[in-house]
Amino acid sequence: MGKKLLLKDIANLAGVSEMTASRALRGAPDVSQRTREKVEQIAKDVGYVPNRIAGALASNKVNLVGVVVPSLNSSVFPEVLSGISSKLKDTPLKPVIGVTAYDLEEEEEVIREMLSWRPAGIVVAGLEHTEAARKMMANADCPVVEVMDVDGDPVRHCVGISHLAAGRAMARTILDAGYKRIGFIGTKMPQDFRAEKRLTGFLEELEKAGVSLADQELYSGASSIENGHLLTKELLARTPDLDCLYFSSDVMSVGAYMHCVAAGLSVPDELALAGFNNLNLLRGLPIKLATTDAHRFAIGEAAADIILDAPKAAKLVQLEPEAIRGQSL
Amino acid sequence: MGKKLLLKDIANLAGVSEMTASRALRGAPDVSQRTREKVEQIAKDVGYVPNRIAGALASNKVNLVGVVVPSLNSSVFPEVLSGISSKLKDTPLKPVIGVTAYDLEEEEEVIREMLSWRPAGIVVAGLEHTEAARKMMANADCPVVEVMDVDGDPVRHCVGISHLAAGRAMARTILDAGYKRIGFIGTKMPQDFRAEKRLTGFLEELEKAGVSLADQELYSGASSIENGHLLTKELLARTPDLDCLYFSSDVMSVGAYMHCVAAGLSVPDELALAGFNNLNLLRGLPIKLATTDAHRFAIGEAAADIILDAPKAAKLVQLEPEAIRGQSL
Repeated sequence: MGKKLLLKDIANLAGVSEMTASRALRGAPDVSQRTREKVEQIAKDVGYVPNRIAGALASNKVNLVGVVVPSLNSSVFPEVLSGISSKLKDTPLKPVIGVTAYDLEEEEEVIREMLSWRPAGIVVAGLEHTEAARKMMANADCPVVEVMDVDGDPVRHCVGISHLAAGRAMARTILDAGYKRIGFIGTKMPQDFRAEKRLTGFLEELEKAGVSLADQELYSGASSIENGHLLTKELLARTPDLDCLYFSSDVMSVGAYMHCVAAGLSVPDELALAGFNNLNLLRGLPIKLATTDAHRFAIGEAAADIILDAPKAAKLVQLEPEAIRGQSL
Repeated sequence: MGKKLLLKDIANLAGVSEMTASRALRGAPDVSQRTREKVEQIAKDVGYVPNRIAGALASNKVNLVGVVVPSLNSSVFPEVLSGISSKLKDTPLKPVIGVTAYDLEEEEEVIREMLSWRPAGIVVAGLEHTEAARKMMANADCPVVEVMDVDGDPVRHCVGISHLAAGRAMARTILDAGYKRIGFIGTKMPQDFRAEKRLTGFLEELEKAGVSLADQELYSGASSIENGHLLTKELLARTPDLDCLYFSSDVMSVGAYMHCVAAGLSVPDELALAGFNNLNLLRGLPIKLATTDAHRFAIGEAAADIILDAPKAAKLVQLEPEAIRGQSL
């Protein structure tokens, strides 16, 4: 690493005082543009990075936005993050990401860590948290936005869709298409509160139509194409006369489709399939699978807007989940 | 947000001085366990989060590990991150993630931002950076680990595979299987330096065997199942007698497989396919697609170990890329 570069070294190279060099690197208004550019160029040439901690202590605020998500392993949350990044791109704010692995205790730790840095804002997935996490968010001295879900009691700002409504809408789409022997396969149950809400809405709507669920599999593991393939095979072995399967995620319905390709089952004639999220994954398959657009990118954008605006009153942005019938129903 | 909670409030509730409350929340050794637990419980009950900025200024170090990756949209980098997280889980260090969108100028900005917080370490994907980014990393007062790739000149520590070797190994596997009319489809070329190195190694090995590439498509956009499907269709329309296609990523070879399913082409009899990364995505397909295991989780683990150990001498951890023939060659 060689000799440690100090602000003093930059000041000497630029022929200015340490105070002027520091002010130049912070972009303070009372430094001439020429001096600022000179100091910045020298810092860049030698690889000096100014220390932000001191400045943050003075302002008691850092230019980071904490984003707390359960997982990065499907493209669900990366797309929310893309929406956030697209809005922060031309601002001084930078997103930093924390992952909770669908564990509320871990989430509490990550939220505490993020807030201890006095970020410019914090975005947290979901409305279900430990009581301690809710209290920290309620006391935070920055905008707090809960994203994805509106079915619950937000701490402050909230951007999302109703997952109850998403489940109901897909049930209606499936019933309208004439299916009667309907099964459900969910993953990360019950930790995935949003998947559980979709199932609740789905069952409500079936009940209204006098249809009951023919079979279901609530799997505790993660969603994956492999699990979608295997669980579909198992469920069909147990209940062979199912005519339609609804899944907690697109990753699972793609796996089910792979089972159908492998087993020579025609979709939707022999088995209809529907997932959730409208992931990119669905594009490029031989047929378009039914899904619900969860507006993930737009949710990220709206959350970033709230952090940039920092409105005084609690804000609720509710987007409408859109059921897409595709070619698999 | 109500009245802002101050350290004073916690101290009053606990019946201790502000100094003692501060020391208790920092886990300082000269506070009794009973007092520490009492203060921590009160902070938790009321939702108070201690301010870490002041402590960081004193130690000139924060307990964050910066992880700088080009993209989160496939599961390539999330799995490196899972490896890092698995090692940091039981330490005070927390990963924070920055995304560069395969743009070296953006990467330089993200690295500057990360280093300005004086992190406990920084992990950066790849060996190609701007000169300014390399200088900042060389001067950083913390362990710097470049991950994924060993074909180049690391700034300091390095963990990865040789992508030249990965390309050569897959060429040998394909040649050994008897294919002669071989095509290549790559994405994010030339920004994806590692994909370019694999292609270089692949072509070298074909040349040794006296085989030249029958056709290729170097696509500037991102890899996706959809693009794999479409580009395969286009390449086959242009060069119908190809017997094998090598892709810069598994996401693309899965898209090619979808084209084969849609077009009724038998894999590998009518078209052989090979990708790269050994993504989870490959599990659950009707057949196992050929790929190369890039050891992403192990790379993340090894990088975290280096940050935790902070060795004085530059460390190089080179893992062996493993070509997997699967059922598609």
